[in-house]
Amino acid sequence: MEVCKILHMNYGDGDKGYAKNSLLQQKVISMAWPIIKETVEDFCNTLNIPITTLSMADLGCSSGSNTLMIISNLIKLIQLHNNKPTQYQIFFNDLPSNDFNAIFRSLPNLLEDLKSQIGDNFIGNNCFFNGVSGSFYGRLFPNKSLHFVHSSYSLHWLSQVPQGMEIINKGNIFIDSTSPKNVIKGYYKQFQKDFSLFLKCRGEEIVTGGRMVFTILGRTDEYPPNTDYYCYDIKFMNLILNNMVTEGLIKEEKVDQFNIPKFRPSPEEVKVEILKEGSFMINCVQVSRIDWNFYNNGEFDGLLSNNNVCGEVDSSYYFAKCIRSVYEPLLIFYFEEAIVDELFQRYSKIIKDEMSNNKYEYINLTVSLTKI
Amino acid sequence: MEVCKILHMNYGDGDKGYAKNSLLQQKVISMAWPIIKETVEDFCNTLNIPITTLSMADLGCSSGSNTLMIISNLIKLIQLHNNKPTQYQIFFNDLPSNDFNAIFRSLPNLLEDLKSQIGDNFIGNNCFFNGVSGSFYGRLFPNKSLHFVHSSYSLHWLSQVPQGMEIINKGNIFIDSTSPKNVIKGYYKQFQKDFSLFLKCRGEEIVTGGRMVFTILGRTDEYPPNTDYYCYDIKFMNLILNNMVTEGLIKEEKVDQFNIPKFRPSPEEVKVEILKEGSFMINCVQVSRIDWNFYNNGEFDGLLSNNNVCGEVDSSYYFAKCIRSVYEPLLIFYFEEAIVDELFQRYSKIIKDEMSNNKYEYINLTVSLTKI
Repeated sequence: MEVCKILHMNYGDGDKGYAKNSLLQQKVISMAWPIIKETVEDFCNTLNIPITTLSMADLGCSSGSNTLMIISNLIKLIQLHNNKPTQYQIFFNDLPSNDFNAIFRSLPNLLEDLKSQIGDNFIGNNCFFNGVSGSFYGRLFPNKSLHFVHSSYSLHWLSQVPQGMEIINKGNIFIDSTSPKNVIKGYYKQFQKDFSLFLKCRGEEIVTGGRMVFTILGRTDEYPPNTDYYCYDIKFMNLILNNMVTEGLIKEEKVDQFNIPKFRPSPEEVKVEILKEGSFMINCVQVSRIDWNFYNNGEFDGLLSNNNVCGEVDSSYYFAKCIRSVYEPLLIFYFEEAIVDELFQRYSKIIKDEMSNNKYEYINLTVSLTKI
Repeated sequence: MEVCKILHMNYGDGDKGYAKNSLLQQKVISMAWPIIKETVEDFCNTLNIPITTLSMADLGCSSGSNTLMIISNLIKLIQLHNNKPTQYQIFFNDLPSNDFNAIFRSLPNLLEDLKSQIGDNFIGNNCFFNGVSGSFYGRLFPNKSLHFVHSSYSLHWLSQVPQGMEIINKGNIFIDSTSPKNVIKGYYKQFQKDFSLFLKCRGEEIVTGGRMVFTILGRTDEYPPNTDYYCYDIKFMNLILNNMVTEGLIKEEKVDQFNIPKFRPSPEEVKVEILKEGSFMINCVQVSRIDWNFYNNGEFDGLLSNNNVCGEVDSSYYFAKCIRSVYEPLLIFYFEEAIVDELFQRYSKIIKDEMSNNKYEYINLTVSLTKI
């Protein structure tokens, strides 16, 4: 599977689009913000003279309000600093299948927001935005051309499904508590290969002393895990796919051939690769948690309208829609659209039941690095 | 009219798409190539030491094979030089309404072509491509960050229709031999304002000694023109719109309000603005001509299939389709889609008649400049 040709979030501003279903990803960025802020401020403080053109890249940016939010906040933050640059050059990166047109068409809104806060003339003449299409498991920028790199909820995607999974991971679409050891080993090896290549490429592109902060889905325990806690979202998808095989709706081989190119590493696994690769110094690796029913904690009330009879936000509804906006394009590449639609109908129901009985969490790792 | 929000070529790979109807623009680039080549070679020859990262921008790039052709040819040309750079950073610029997704999805083909000719490892690790959305009548890049700028068949588009045209240019959609003097003056003033701003912005972005080559539609005579020779493509469109008003298909006010934001300057008008603005030295301003029925000169036979009963290429068919792919989005913004469809049905017929009786030409100006 050529992940780089297929993977993208659901397009458009519609009900199923990623742009309308990415509050989780927004929350992840907000939770990582203190680390991002500290890292960027520390970078500015270490500068002897201000940089003329400060270059920043957001890798795996997708499209929608989150894409612009992080960049907007970064510019506002750096503008407060004594050592602020004369100009900014911003790079939005994602795979070629991403909707860059949507980013470019939403840029005027970002500019208006920045103009109102920083000044019309400065922003209009000194902030330059670029789209860069390509896999971050390869070079994207010239040598030593970036000062700060950010990436949120992207780097847990692998460049490919580890080889042989269609044979050794039959019936499963991911690492599960029932997965044989060589499945776990296969996924881990792919992670090591991809992540060290990512570090090598960024090591060549970021200036000495430059910073990088990324947040990924991770886990806290080691393999084999004691629970399915860390991949419950995919576990339920797997369950439904297997039921649909039993019902004759999908051929068994189809599910055998489908594996999700994603790995959720432990903090230790991340640290080991960074130290081994050698381009970066680790500032911090922070573990954070988000309840899967965070939608009804009041934080996003103004943005959510699907309330139950008691007026409470139905978290399961938003959780299922978020998962759909992320996985649907990948699933549609393998299965028919009608099958995928049925899959997500069932998914909503399972999540509704599960959420009233069980408590799951997203485990996030936020990593701050300095280029040596 | 906010030209920068509306203007784009017809999207897609389909029959009406710009990508499939831009042989004229391909021919224009080919004809300008000797000047582009000489300018770039001269730039390389004046370098004392090779540039690490050579930055080039194509402004008003649209999407399709022409977008990639010029960049591919430039990289191949520079790679032959002793003073070749270590890396390339390429910027594709157009308005936000352009289809950047199409550019990004066609990049792998460009890379394959370059890899086969220059070397797999070099291209994969040393050529970096970016999309930049925004009007070139404003800043797009950091100060002194570009070595070479190219633009083909874009800079004859104005940033806006000159003010007041809906009142003083009633019944006409462009400058015509019947246009009053203040219409010509209005269009010329807008050109002066836009073109000098373009030069000022590029002057800030291009390094001293850097080069710029652009080709635009122009004219050879002065206003008022003796013939309609220089804007025959729009004249026929105007004629049809006025007929459709007479037939009650379009309201007269609609046509009065519609004016095309385009100006075709004379070489003298171009030179005067460049000298007045002062950022650039003029290397050359070359006038070239293309017969409007160039499609049947044999050059593109392999690419053309709409032959007449004698097996000859029907130039009028391709000419009309080319004009449609350029003007349709602008027209659809003002008129209903059915009206625009009818307009182009009639346009094809008029062009077929005219082409068998009259000989018209495109007049192109190719300008080569060096940043002072």
